[in-house]
Amino acid sequence: MKDEYDFIQQIRPDETFQSDLVEGIGDDAAIVKQNDQFEQVICQDTMVEGIHFRKDTMASDHIGYKALAANISDVAAMGAIPQFYLVSIAVPKENWSDEEVYHLFNGMKRLGDRFSMDLIGGDTVSSSSDLMLTVTVIGKVERGYALRRSNAQVGDIVFVTGYLGESAAGLSLLMSHGLDNHTYTQSEKRLIEKHQTPSPQVAIGRLLAELRIEASLNDISDGIATEANEIMEASDVAIEIDYDKMPRSEAFCDIVPSEAKQADYVLFGGEEFELIGTVRAADWPPFKEACERNQLPITPIGQVIQGKPAVYLKQGSRYQRLTKQGYNHFAE
Amino acid sequence: MKDEYDFIQQIRPDETFQSDLVEGIGDDAAIVKQNDQFEQVICQDTMVEGIHFRKDTMASDHIGYKALAANISDVAAMGAIPQFYLVSIAVPKENWSDEEVYHLFNGMKRLGDRFSMDLIGGDTVSSSSDLMLTVTVIGKVERGYALRRSNAQVGDIVFVTGYLGESAAGLSLLMSHGLDNHTYTQSEKRLIEKHQTPSPQVAIGRLLAELRIEASLNDISDGIATEANEIMEASDVAIEIDYDKMPRSEAFCDIVPSEAKQADYVLFGGEEFELIGTVRAADWPPFKEACERNQLPITPIGQVIQGKPAVYLKQGSRYQRLTKQGYNHFAE
Repeated sequence: MKDEYDFIQQIRPDETFQSDLVEGIGDDAAIVKQNDQFEQVICQDTMVEGIHFRKDTMASDHIGYKALAANISDVAAMGAIPQFYLVSIAVPKENWSDEEVYHLFNGMKRLGDRFSMDLIGGDTVSSSSDLMLTVTVIGKVERGYALRRSNAQVGDIVFVTGYLGESAAGLSLLMSHGLDNHTYTQSEKRLIEKHQTPSPQVAIGRLLAELRIEASLNDISDGIATEANEIMEASDVAIEIDYDKMPRSEAFCDIVPSEAKQADYVLFGGEEFELIGTVRAADWPPFKEACERNQLPITPIGQVIQGKPAVYLKQGSRYQRLTKQGYNHFAE
Repeated sequence: MKDEYDFIQQIRPDETFQSDLVEGIGDDAAIVKQNDQFEQVICQDTMVEGIHFRKDTMASDHIGYKALAANISDVAAMGAIPQFYLVSIAVPKENWSDEEVYHLFNGMKRLGDRFSMDLIGGDTVSSSSDLMLTVTVIGKVERGYALRRSNAQVGDIVFVTGYLGESAAGLSLLMSHGLDNHTYTQSEKRLIEKHQTPSPQVAIGRLLAELRIEASLNDISDGIATEANEIMEASDVAIEIDYDKMPRSEAFCDIVPSEAKQADYVLFGGEEFELIGTVRAADWPPFKEACERNQLPITPIGQVIQGKPAVYLKQGSRYQRLTKQGYNHFAE
């Protein structure tokens, strides 16, 4: 597959048939009519051993946990309540024991139970080489209040939840010192946990949907550079974000002293399943207050501005265009 | 994985959380509340190259078609209308061209379009060895009228749709003569098509649901022996089926002259995605008449009888117990 994005454009249907379909391919999840109160959101992700995870940085339990977390995060980014999951797993007979596969499902159950989700189906098959895991998650959101990427408007405040760059920093530690053969410090453990068992930010999405705040929202699976660009493309607006405002934890700054590495992890790391979004400036004070009341950390990092659709990054005295892949000099 | 059935029992949740859940793991598909008129059915299946299909017996287009057909068949076995599908595909860079993957999606679209289904999501990733394909299908059925395996009662007529054994016979031809290097006769082509592009029996399931006929239903993915046993287990009844009544096409009998091979394909072949089910004896005449009016072939092959739960097979003068794996002498 040369270019996944191009390929998806190729197979994306030109027309749809079902009147129950509200929104098909394009956002974090599809939206389907359910009843007068709710719409259903549905998403599906696949993780492949050797590509999305490795046994030397993730225990079986973490692999299951994270595969479900990635999908719950997509549902969270729609403002929805996660309800159900289906799991299909292809297991290579040689390298995986029944016990390991059981632990993998247990990692999923641990997270699923936390959100009162039910496992309702799937498939278990053999594979000849690598373990492969496809998870489908189904949730529901108040009708008409799904938080789409395309909701951003000029004047909106751009915010992120939690802290950035931690998962990438955690992975780097695991790659250097391994899963079990090293005694990690408390700060290091924090970053490693952020990589292995990140928490999907369901509460923030729900708060926005329940307050009926019109917001755009995207989960940070591929790094904030990619996700900000996706909101920009879907909403057809210009976005300006300020690197110096991006939330970095003390543990992160201690363990990653290099400024260049910090920026790399913060902008392009992802996988911690925090959220990036925008809300109208007038909605910011009540939203921020509600987050504080619920002890949910959010940080304003920029705004939606007039101009040709693009993402601009302020970083100290520099002002450059930020693309999915990296920086472009502004005067390109 | 030593025993898939045992494993599923191990991971099957003891309790469920969501009040929207009508039926979880256990039937062809899960059932979820939708609104006053409809319930939603959801199923997910995985096909792995080298295990479920091979490039030397299936073109890319057939592989996509059949992966979707297998899931539509599960939805059909619930009496539901298929509406949506999600596709996750892991593609090995080495052995699969972009064009082949495109044809695979095209095979799916060809079948999906026939049922007015929308592709609403999924994932496209790389794999290091074999192609792997997970398809989720979502449909809907009139509330309370999902055709469960557990609906069979003593006195019911057992029926099957279409003709049996054809897919297995088609596969055997393909294994002997290959995909492209042989000129097949019209009869042979019929069997090969039944293997490569079987038609899910949505119309029969819909007819039962629309007529509000209480029926048990199961799709024949693993052979009639397995599927009859699944109805027997879920309904806790004894089932008697008559081998000599099982519908075999002229093409099938011509091409498979061996009586033993015929029985093997008919009883244990599967994959043609016909349906096996039971209806109350009083409902049989109107059901049969409705099928005839709609030119949908069905054949009565047995009945649900008094006695200890088991499946019994009449075959000429023999009367034996039929298990998922084979025959057991009755006097065991």
